[in-house]
Amino acid sequence: MAYIELHNDFPGIRGLMAFRPECARPLNELAEALLCAESTLTRGERELIATYVSHLNDCFFCQQAHGGIAQHLLACSTDYIDQVKADFNQTDLSQKMKALLTIAASVQHSGKSVTQDQIDTAIAEGATEREIHDTVLIAASFCMFNRYVDGLGTWAPQDRNFYIQRGKQRADEGYAHYNPAH
Amino acid sequence: MAYIELHNDFPGIRGLMAFRPECARPLNELAEALLCAESTLTRGERELIATYVSHLNDCFFCQQAHGGIAQHLLACSTDYIDQVKADFNQTDLSQKMKALLTIAASVQHSGKSVTQDQIDTAIAEGATEREIHDTVLIAASFCMFNRYVDGLGTWAPQDRNFYIQRGKQRADEGYAHYNPAH
Repeated sequence: MAYIELHNDFPGIRGLMAFRPECARPLNELAEALLCAESTLTRGERELIATYVSHLNDCFFCQQAHGGIAQHLLACSTDYIDQVKADFNQTDLSQKMKALLTIAASVQHSGKSVTQDQIDTAIAEGATEREIHDTVLIAASFCMFNRYVDGLGTWAPQDRNFYIQRGKQRADEGYAHYNPAH
Repeated sequence: MAYIELHNDFPGIRGLMAFRPECARPLNELAEALLCAESTLTRGERELIATYVSHLNDCFFCQQAHGGIAQHLLACSTDYIDQVKADFNQTDLSQKMKALLTIAASVQHSGKSVTQDQIDTAIAEGATEREIHDTVLIAASFCMFNRYVDGLGTWAPQDRNFYIQRGKQRADEGYAHYNPAH
Protein backbone atom coordinates (compact mmCIF):
# COMPACT_ATOMS: atom_id res chain seq x y z
CA MET A 1 0.00 0.00 0.00
CA ALA A 2 1.13 3.52 -0.75
CA TYR A 3 2.36 5.81 2.06
CA ILE A 4 -0.61 8.13 1.49
CA GLU A 5 -4.31 7.38 0.99
CA LEU A 6 -4.82 7.53 -2.79
CA HIS A 7 -8.53 6.65 -2.77
CA ASN A 8 -7.96 4.16 -5.60
CA ASP A 9 -6.42 0.72 -6.11
CA PHE A 10 -4.36 1.36 -9.25
CA PRO A 11 -0.72 0.17 -9.08
CA GLY A 12 2.47 2.20 -9.51
CA ILE A 13 2.26 5.62 -11.10
CA ARG A 14 -1.36 4.96 -12.14
CA GLY A 15 -2.58 5.40 -8.57
CA LEU A 16 -0.59 8.62 -8.19
CA MET A 17 -1.89 10.02 -11.47
CA ALA A 18 -5.49 9.33 -10.48
CA PHE A 19 -4.82 11.06 -7.12
CA ARG A 20 -3.30 14.20 -8.66
CA PRO A 21 -4.50 14.72 -12.25
CA GLU A 22 -3.18 18.32 -12.38
CA CYS A 23 0.33 16.85 -12.27
CA ALA A 24 -0.51 13.76 -14.33
CA ARG A 25 -1.33 15.85 -17.40
CA PRO A 26 2.12 17.48 -17.87
CA LEU A 27 3.87 14.26 -16.83
CA ASN A 28 2.07 12.35 -19.58
CA GLU A 29 2.66 15.14 -22.11
CA LEU A 30 6.36 14.95 -21.30
CA ALA A 31 6.35 11.17 -21.77
CA GLU A 32 4.52 11.57 -25.08
CA ALA A 33 7.02 14.16 -26.35
CA LEU A 34 10.01 12.07 -25.35
CA LEU A 35 8.86 8.50 -26.00
CA CYS A 36 6.20 8.65 -28.73
CA ALA A 37 6.49 11.82 -30.82
CA GLU A 38 8.47 11.99 -34.05
CA SER A 39 12.15 11.17 -33.56
CA THR A 40 15.07 9.56 -35.35
CA LEU A 41 15.29 7.17 -32.40
CA THR A 42 12.66 4.44 -32.71
CA ARG A 43 9.98 4.18 -30.04
CA GLY A 44 11.46 0.83 -29.02
CA GLU A 45 14.92 2.37 -28.56
CA ARG A 46 13.50 5.15 -26.41
CA GLU A 47 11.48 2.75 -24.25
CA LEU A 48 14.66 0.69 -23.85
CA ILE A 49 16.50 3.73 -22.46
CA ALA A 50 13.59 4.29 -20.04
CA THR A 51 13.66 0.61 -19.03
CA TYR A 52 17.42 0.61 -18.48
CA VAL A 53 17.40 3.72 -16.27
CA SER A 54 14.45 2.33 -14.28
CA HIS A 55 16.45 -0.86 -13.80
CA LEU A 56 19.46 1.13 -12.53
CA ASN A 57 17.11 2.93 -10.12
CA ASP A 58 15.74 -0.47 -9.04
CA CYS A 59 12.15 0.66 -9.69
CA PHE A 60 10.20 -2.57 -10.25
CA PHE A 61 7.00 -1.03 -11.60
CA CYS A 62 8.66 1.28 -14.16
CA GLN A 63 11.24 -1.22 -15.40
CA GLN A 64 8.56 -3.87 -15.93
CA ALA A 65 5.97 -1.53 -17.45
CA HIS A 66 8.40 0.09 -19.89
CA GLY A 67 10.26 -3.18 -20.41
CA GLY A 68 6.96 -4.71 -21.55
CA ILE A 69 6.38 -1.84 -23.99
CA ALA A 70 9.98 -2.03 -25.29
CA GLN A 71 9.67 -5.80 -25.77
CA HIS A 72 6.53 -5.31 -27.84
CA LEU A 73 7.92 -2.46 -29.94
CA LEU A 74 11.27 -4.17 -30.55
CA ALA A 75 9.56 -7.55 -31.12
CA CYS A 76 12.23 -9.11 -28.93
CA SER A 77 12.26 -11.68 -26.13
CA THR A 78 12.12 -11.08 -22.38
CA ASP A 79 15.63 -12.53 -22.27
CA TYR A 80 16.84 -9.80 -24.60
CA ILE A 81 15.47 -7.08 -22.31
CA ASP A 82 17.27 -8.78 -19.42
CA GLN A 83 20.53 -8.95 -21.39
CA VAL A 84 20.36 -5.20 -22.05
CA LYS A 85 19.85 -4.55 -18.34
CA ALA A 86 22.67 -6.92 -17.32
CA ASP A 87 25.28 -5.69 -19.85
CA PHE A 88 24.10 -3.88 -22.97
CA ASN A 89 27.65 -3.89 -24.37
CA GLN A 90 27.35 -7.66 -24.85
CA THR A 91 24.18 -7.38 -26.96
CA ASP A 92 23.73 -6.73 -30.69
CA LEU A 93 22.50 -3.15 -30.11
CA SER A 94 24.02 -0.60 -32.48
CA GLN A 95 27.17 1.22 -31.40
CA LYS A 96 25.12 4.41 -31.33
CA MET A 97 22.60 2.90 -28.91
CA LYS A 98 25.43 1.61 -26.73
CA ALA A 99 26.91 5.12 -26.61
CA LEU A 100 23.50 6.60 -25.72
CA LEU A 101 22.89 4.02 -22.98
CA THR A 102 26.33 4.86 -21.58
CA ILE A 103 25.26 8.52 -21.34
CA ALA A 104 21.92 7.48 -19.79
CA ALA A 105 23.75 5.47 -17.12
CA SER A 106 25.86 8.51 -16.24
CA VAL A 107 22.76 10.70 -15.98
CA GLN A 108 21.16 8.14 -13.66
CA HIS A 109 24.13 8.56 -11.31
CA SER A 110 24.32 12.35 -11.57
CA GLY A 111 24.13 15.00 -14.27
CA LYS A 112 27.76 15.83 -13.51
CA SER A 113 28.83 12.24 -14.34
CA VAL A 114 28.34 12.79 -18.07
CA THR A 115 31.69 13.41 -19.77
CA GLN A 116 32.74 15.17 -22.96
CA ASP A 117 34.29 11.86 -24.01
CA GLN A 118 30.92 10.09 -23.75
CA ILE A 119 29.33 12.81 -25.88
CA ASP A 120 32.15 12.65 -28.44
CA THR A 121 31.75 8.87 -28.70
CA ALA A 122 28.00 9.18 -29.28
CA ILE A 123 28.56 11.77 -32.03
CA ALA A 124 31.28 9.60 -33.62
CA GLU A 125 28.77 6.73 -33.72
CA GLY A 126 26.28 8.92 -35.56
CA ALA A 127 24.10 10.31 -32.75
CA THR A 128 22.56 13.71 -33.50
CA GLU A 129 22.41 16.65 -31.09
CA ARG A 130 18.72 16.02 -30.58
CA GLU A 131 19.22 12.32 -29.96
CA ILE A 132 21.77 13.16 -27.26
CA HIS A 133 19.47 15.80 -25.79
CA ASP A 134 16.53 13.42 -25.71
CA THR A 135 18.59 10.59 -24.22
CA VAL A 136 19.67 12.86 -21.35
CA LEU A 137 16.11 14.07 -20.75
CA ILE A 138 14.60 10.55 -20.98
CA ALA A 139 17.16 9.35 -18.43
CA ALA A 140 16.60 12.40 -16.20
CA SER A 141 12.81 12.09 -16.42
CA PHE A 142 12.93 8.45 -15.34
CA CYS A 143 15.03 9.50 -12.36
CA MET A 144 11.90 11.52 -11.54
CA PHE A 145 9.28 8.90 -12.42
CA ASN A 146 11.14 6.17 -10.50
CA ARG A 147 11.48 8.36 -7.38
CA TYR A 148 7.83 9.37 -7.62
CA VAL A 149 6.65 5.73 -7.77
CA ASP A 150 8.96 4.40 -5.03
CA GLY A 151 9.10 7.55 -2.86
CA LEU A 152 5.38 7.25 -2.21
CA GLY A 153 5.58 3.50 -1.63
CA THR A 154 3.12 2.47 -4.34
CA TRP A 155 2.31 -1.22 -4.85
CA ALA A 156 3.08 -3.17 -8.04
CA PRO A 157 1.87 -6.50 -9.39
CA GLN A 158 4.75 -8.95 -8.97
CA ASP A 159 3.94 -11.17 -11.97
CA ARG A 160 6.10 -9.98 -14.83
CA ASN A 161 3.67 -11.40 -17.39
CA PHE A 162 1.14 -8.78 -16.27
CA TYR A 163 3.37 -6.06 -17.76
CA ILE A 164 4.39 -8.03 -20.85
CA GLN A 165 0.75 -8.66 -21.70
CA ARG A 166 -0.03 -4.94 -21.30
CA GLY A 167 2.92 -3.87 -23.45
CA LYS A 168 1.03 -3.80 -26.75
CA GLN A 169 -1.94 -1.88 -25.33
CA ARG A 170 0.31 0.72 -23.68
CA ALA A 171 2.33 1.09 -26.89
CA ASP A 172 -0.82 1.50 -28.99
CA GLU A 173 -2.41 4.05 -26.66
CA GLY A 174 0.68 6.18 -26.01
CA TYR A 175 0.74 8.73 -23.19
CA ALA A 176 -1.01 11.85 -24.47
CA HIS A 177 -4.50 10.70 -23.46
CA TYR A 178 -3.39 8.39 -20.69
CA ASN A 179 -6.17 7.10 -18.44
CA PRO A 180 -4.88 5.68 -15.13
CA ALA A 181 -7.88 3.34 -14.98
CA HIS A 182 -6.88 1.54 -18.20
CA MET B 1 29.40 25.75 -23.22
CA ALA B 2 26.84 22.98 -23.42
CA TYR B 3 27.79 19.53 -24.76
CA ILE B 4 25.49 20.04 -27.75
CA GLU B 5 25.00 23.03 -30.07
CA LEU B 6 21.91 24.80 -28.72
CA HIS B 7 21.91 27.66 -31.25
CA ASN B 8 21.34 30.17 -28.43
CA ASP B 9 23.29 31.73 -25.56
CA PHE B 10 20.77 31.33 -22.73
CA PRO B 11 22.18 29.83 -19.50
CA GLY B 12 21.06 26.69 -17.66
CA ILE B 13 17.72 25.18 -18.48
CA ARG B 14 16.75 28.26 -20.52
CA GLY B 15 19.09 27.25 -23.34
CA LEU B 16 17.69 23.71 -23.33
CA MET B 17 14.10 24.93 -23.35
CA ALA B 18 14.75 27.19 -26.32
CA PHE B 19 16.38 24.24 -28.13
CA ARG B 20 13.49 21.82 -27.51
CA PRO B 21 10.20 23.71 -26.93
CA GLU B 22 8.10 20.54 -27.35
CA CYS B 23 9.62 19.31 -24.08
CA ALA B 24 9.79 22.75 -22.45
CA ARG B 25 6.01 23.13 -22.48
CA PRO B 26 5.15 20.11 -20.28
CA LEU B 27 8.20 20.76 -18.08
CA ASN B 28 6.97 24.29 -17.37
CA GLU B 29 3.39 23.12 -16.86
CA LEU B 30 4.67 20.61 -14.31
CA ALA B 31 6.64 23.35 -12.51
CA GLU B 32 3.56 25.59 -12.52
CA ALA B 33 1.34 22.84 -11.04
CA LEU B 34 3.87 21.98 -8.34
CA LEU B 35 5.38 25.34 -7.44
CA CYS B 36 2.78 28.02 -8.26
CA ALA B 37 -0.75 26.59 -8.34
CA GLU B 38 -3.07 26.60 -5.34
CA SER B 39 -1.62 24.68 -2.39
CA THR B 40 -1.60 24.69 1.41
CA LEU B 41 2.20 24.94 1.14
CA THR B 42 3.25 28.52 0.39
CA ARG B 43 5.07 29.22 -2.84
CA GLY B 44 8.13 30.15 -0.79
CA GLU B 45 8.07 26.81 1.02
CA ARG B 46 7.81 24.91 -2.25
CA GLU B 47 10.66 26.88 -3.86
CA LEU B 48 12.71 26.13 -0.74
CA ILE B 49 12.18 22.37 -1.24
CA ALA B 50 13.29 22.79 -4.87
CA THR B 51 16.34 24.79 -3.77
CA TYR B 52 17.33 22.26 -1.12
CA VAL B 53 17.12 19.28 -3.49
CA SER B 54 19.08 21.20 -6.16
CA HIS B 55 21.72 21.91 -3.50
CA LEU B 56 21.91 18.19 -2.62
CA ASN B 57 22.33 17.43 -6.34
CA ASP B 58 25.04 20.11 -6.51
CA CYS B 59 23.32 21.84 -9.43
CA PHE B 60 24.59 25.42 -9.34
CA PHE B 61 22.10 26.92 -11.82
CA CYS B 62 18.96 25.41 -10.25
CA GLN B 63 19.90 26.01 -6.64
CA GLN B 64 20.73 29.66 -7.36
CA ALA B 65 17.73 30.32 -9.60
CA HIS B 66 15.20 28.74 -7.23
CA GLY B 67 17.09 30.02 -4.18
CA GLY B 68 16.65 33.54 -5.55
CA ILE B 69 12.93 32.97 -6.03
CA ALA B 70 12.56 31.44 -2.54
CA GLN B 71 14.47 34.34 -1.00
CA HIS B 72 12.10 36.81 -2.64
CA LEU B 73 8.92 34.91 -1.74
CA LEU B 74 10.00 34.26 1.86
CA ALA B 75 11.38 37.81 2.22
CA CYS B 76 14.44 36.31 3.89
CA SER B 77 18.20 36.84 3.63
CA THR B 78 20.71 34.98 1.49
CA ASP B 79 22.21 33.76 4.75
CA TYR B 80 18.92 32.15 5.68
CA ILE B 81 18.80 30.21 2.39
CA ASP B 82 22.36 29.06 3.10
CA GLN B 83 21.43 27.96 6.64
CA VAL B 84 18.58 25.84 5.26
CA LYS B 85 20.98 24.19 2.83
CA ALA B 86 23.63 23.61 5.50
CA ASP B 87 21.32 22.22 8.22
CA PHE B 88 17.61 23.03 8.06
CA ASN B 89 17.06 21.42 11.48
CA GLN B 90 18.96 24.35 13.04
CA THR B 91 16.68 26.97 11.47
CA ASP B 92 13.33 28.34 12.65
CA LEU B 93 11.40 26.49 9.93
CA SER B 94 8.21 24.81 11.17
CA GLN B 95 8.41 21.21 12.35
CA LYS B 96 6.19 20.31 9.41
CA MET B 97 8.62 21.86 6.91
CA LYS B 98 11.54 20.08 8.60
CA ALA B 99 9.68 16.77 8.24
CA LEU B 100 8.94 17.51 4.56
CA LEU B 101 12.57 18.48 3.85
CA THR B 102 13.65 15.21 5.49
CA ILE B 103 11.42 13.33 3.03
CA ALA B 104 12.76 15.44 0.13
CA ALA B 105 16.34 14.56 1.11
CA SER B 106 15.46 10.85 1.05
CA VAL B 107 13.85 11.18 -2.38
CA GLN B 108 16.99 12.92 -3.66
CA HIS B 109 18.99 9.86 -2.65
CA SER B 110 16.48 7.29 -3.96
CA GLY B 111 12.74 6.76 -3.90
CA LYS B 112 13.35 3.67 -1.82
CA SER B 113 15.08 5.74 0.89
CA VAL B 114 11.78 7.23 2.08
CA THR B 115 10.58 5.43 5.23
CA GLN B 116 7.18 4.94 6.85
CA ASP B 117 8.64 6.63 9.92
CA GLN B 118 9.42 9.79 7.92
CA ILE B 119 5.87 9.82 6.57
CA ASP B 120 4.39 9.27 10.06
CA THR B 121 6.47 12.15 11.43
CA ALA B 122 5.26 14.50 8.69
CA ILE B 123 1.62 13.54 9.34
CA ALA B 124 2.13 13.99 13.11
CA GLU B 125 3.45 17.50 12.40
CA GLY B 126 0.30 18.33 10.43
CA ALA B 127 1.30 17.57 6.85
CA THR B 128 -1.60 16.54 4.59
CA GLU B 129 -1.56 13.66 2.12
CA ARG B 130 -1.33 16.13 -0.74
CA GLU B 131 1.51 18.07 0.89
CA ILE B 132 3.45 14.81 1.23
CA HIS B 133 2.62 13.84 -2.35
CA ASP B 134 3.71 17.22 -3.68
CA THR B 135 6.91 17.23 -1.63
CA VAL B 136 7.90 13.86 -3.10
CA LEU B 137 7.11 14.99 -6.65
CA ILE B 138 8.85 18.36 -6.25
CA ALA B 139 11.95 16.54 -4.98
CA ALA B 140 11.72 13.93 -7.74
CA SER B 141 11.18 16.55 -10.45
CA PHE B 142 14.28 18.47 -9.37
CA CYS B 143 16.25 15.24 -9.59
CA MET B 144 15.16 15.46 -13.24
CA PHE B 145 15.72 19.20 -13.78
CA ASN B 146 19.16 19.09 -12.11
CA ARG B 147 20.28 16.12 -14.25
CA TYR B 148 18.92 17.80 -17.39
CA VAL B 149 20.87 21.01 -16.72
CA ASP B 150 24.15 19.35 -15.69
CA GLY B 151 23.91 16.26 -17.92
CA LEU B 152 24.05 18.48 -21.00
CA GLY B 153 26.83 20.63 -19.55
CA THR B 154 25.01 23.97 -19.73
CA TRP B 155 26.75 27.12 -18.59
CA ALA B 156 25.61 29.29 -15.67
CA PRO B 157 26.43 32.84 -14.58
CA GLN B 158 28.69 32.54 -11.53
CA ASP B 159 27.61 35.76 -9.79
CA ARG B 160 24.99 34.81 -7.25
CA ASN B 161 23.52 38.32 -7.33
CA PHE B 162 22.39 37.66 -10.91
CA TYR B 163 19.90 35.09 -9.59
CA ILE B 164 18.86 37.05 -6.50
CA GLN B 165 18.04 40.07 -8.65
CA ARG B 166 15.97 37.91 -11.00
CA GLY B 167 14.08 36.26 -8.13
CA LYS B 168 11.19 38.74 -8.03
CA GLN B 169 10.67 38.69 -11.82
CA ARG B 170 10.70 34.89 -11.94
CA ALA B 171 8.28 34.71 -9.00
CA ASP B 172 5.93 37.25 -10.61
CA GLU B 173 5.94 35.55 -14.02
CA GLY B 174 5.58 31.94 -12.81
CA TYR B 175 6.21 29.03 -15.17
CA ALA B 176 3.04 28.54 -17.21
CA HIS B 177 4.01 31.04 -19.90
CA TYR B 178 7.76 30.76 -19.42
CA ASN B 179 9.87 32.40 -22.11
CA PRO B 180 13.50 31.19 -22.11
CA ALA B 181 14.60 34.55 -23.55
CA HIS B 182 13.37 36.46 -20.49
